[in-house]
Amino acid sequence: MTVERPRRVTQRDVARLASVSQTTVSLVLSGAPTSQIPAETLERVQAAMRELGYVPNRWARALKTNKTMTLACVVPDIANPFYPSLLRGMQSAADHAGYDVITINTDGAAEREQRFLNWSLEGRVDGVVGVFFTLRVADFQPLTDAGIGVVRIESSKKKVGPLPVDNLYIDNEAAAGEVTRYLIRRGYRRIAMIAGLGGPQEGRLNGYEAALLEAGRKPLIVADEAFNEEGGFRAAQQLFALSARPDAIFAANDMMAIGAMAAAREAGLAVPGDVAIAGFDDIFAARLVTPALTTISQFQHDLGTTAAGVLLDRLQRGNAGPGTSQAMPFRLIERSST
Amino acid sequence: MTVERPRRVTQRDVARLASVSQTTVSLVLSGAPTSQIPAETLERVQAAMRELGYVPNRWARALKTNKTMTLACVVPDIANPFYPSLLRGMQSAADHAGYDVITINTDGAAEREQRFLNWSLEGRVDGVVGVFFTLRVADFQPLTDAGIGVVRIESSKKKVGPLPVDNLYIDNEAAAGEVTRYLIRRGYRRIAMIAGLGGPQEGRLNGYEAALLEAGRKPLIVADEAFNEEGGFRAAQQLFALSARPDAIFAANDMMAIGAMAAAREAGLAVPGDVAIAGFDDIFAARLVTPALTTISQFQHDLGTTAAGVLLDRLQRGNAGPGTSQAMPFRLIERSST
Repeated sequence: MTVERPRRVTQRDVARLASVSQTTVSLVLSGAPTSQIPAETLERVQAAMRELGYVPNRWARALKTNKTMTLACVVPDIANPFYPSLLRGMQSAADHAGYDVITINTDGAAEREQRFLNWSLEGRVDGVVGVFFTLRVADFQPLTDAGIGVVRIESSKKKVGPLPVDNLYIDNEAAAGEVTRYLIRRGYRRIAMIAGLGGPQEGRLNGYEAALLEAGRKPLIVADEAFNEEGGFRAAQQLFALSARPDAIFAANDMMAIGAMAAAREAGLAVPGDVAIAGFDDIFAARLVTPALTTISQFQHDLGTTAAGVLLDRLQRGNAGPGTSQAMPFRLIERSST
Repeated sequence: MTVERPRRVTQRDVARLASVSQTTVSLVLSGAPTSQIPAETLERVQAAMRELGYVPNRWARALKTNKTMTLACVVPDIANPFYPSLLRGMQSAADHAGYDVITINTDGAAEREQRFLNWSLEGRVDGVVGVFFTLRVADFQPLTDAGIGVVRIESSKKKVGPLPVDNLYIDNEAAAGEVTRYLIRRGYRRIAMIAGLGGPQEGRLNGYEAALLEAGRKPLIVADEAFNEEGGFRAAQQLFALSARPDAIFAANDMMAIGAMAAAREAGLAVPGDVAIAGFDDIFAARLVTPALTTISQFQHDLGTTAAGVLLDRLQRGNAGPGTSQAMPFRLIERSST
């Protein structure tokens, strides 16, 4: 695959048209104090740039300044509405600071997360806010060594290590425990959980199990490889086929819960009359389904704004260790599905 | 804002450790035929790279090759589920060709769309697939001049011009006409439209108006600046306050239709008994709401895949004019909201 590209307009072209030296053009581009450049010269250079359509080559500039003014938001599933919300929160903070934000979708797959690391090492971004399913803190050392800021959004408290990696976490185990205890209090007898694989699953499973065991109940878990509505649909079908059908389902995220609701409808089961269903995330659709879905809000927009703030702070302070870890709030939102 | 970055490992470091010349390292990196490099030398260079954690600097490489192996997907509203679908379709095609995809959210705002142009001119991407609300074809000339491939997703047929800008379009006017004629056939007497501002609005409005006028009816349009559920909610409230309340609403997208459904619920109006509601896009949530939403599918996943294919073709063939324009399919999806 080869592409012939026309030659870009260079500083030399600008210098020639403005009848100044290339050093002067470079001085103008560097944003040097105007006291160093006669106003008339400045205008002539700017006019030449306009005329030629000159755009400073950010590769070349970035090689010198090591700054891209671009931040990455890395998410496992852009089709899960949780992440667009997070992104927009991040974008609002980045905007104020003059940074562009680009989004990268990894499917939570090890190979794609690794590829992102290499991609970012090639000097594309100044920093990253990410939800990573497979990378561990040590994997980020090449980035932090290269001065790239890293903020991770995590599902459990992370030990603060020597690397300058900052963590925002929502205690998923505590949140899942809260949903489960709430279902127990509501009088449900057989509370099952639908889970995906990887990502924040483990904390949510642990919280569910601990709350059931604490109440002297036996956990009942069905996992599906897809952490989305299809996975939820399939897992719920399995549960509904049991002779001792559960009367409540806690799904590991709202997409799975919505899939479980569709499976209930198809099986002729009323929600919550025959089976109560609760989710996790409070995506926009959780309010839309009928009945509206009980769930855990992670305040994803605020989470994105806070994450960008921590990253920008880090970029300003310089990228020296140690990392930080900060708990973020969650809340049980009770609606009519339970 | 200053950040001190540690020095990157360079080709010179690799050359020193491997006891070869820098030219040899460069030859290895260029992917030169192995016949030019003794196997033993190749291994020594590769071992040195591994040991030093050397990553080829893509800036530097891009300056030489003018290739980034990255495509941009530019969307007006990443929180509208239509776009994540489009993105994933695009990503599946890009993956096969070894390209990374980054996403950029513009809010459909002129300033952000313009900023994207400058950003991409700084050499970040080889090509772009985008839904642009404010840019015109001539605005892309700097990109096509720089050899950057441009595929636009449009809401009406575009004249093919001399610039190598490719267009995929869905005939929004025809699609909106189809929804409106369908509502007329279903016996609704007073069919209103809820619209946002900008973007694909115009074609949808024209199609609605033409179909009503053709049937000897008077159009009734309420616009809101927000092309989302909040805008739809507010616009529907205005319609419900009219003494001659409409008995059917065609919303310019599904997000607005879902907002209108919420407004109907709040006003104590049954859907479709008191007011029928139809949307446009067939986002995932359209199936989830109760009653499920009648809408127009644009097959967004396939659209994304096709768009990436057109772009990759363009990159392979070289970026010479003229542009192309290709109609994409749509379909009315009848559900229970009408």
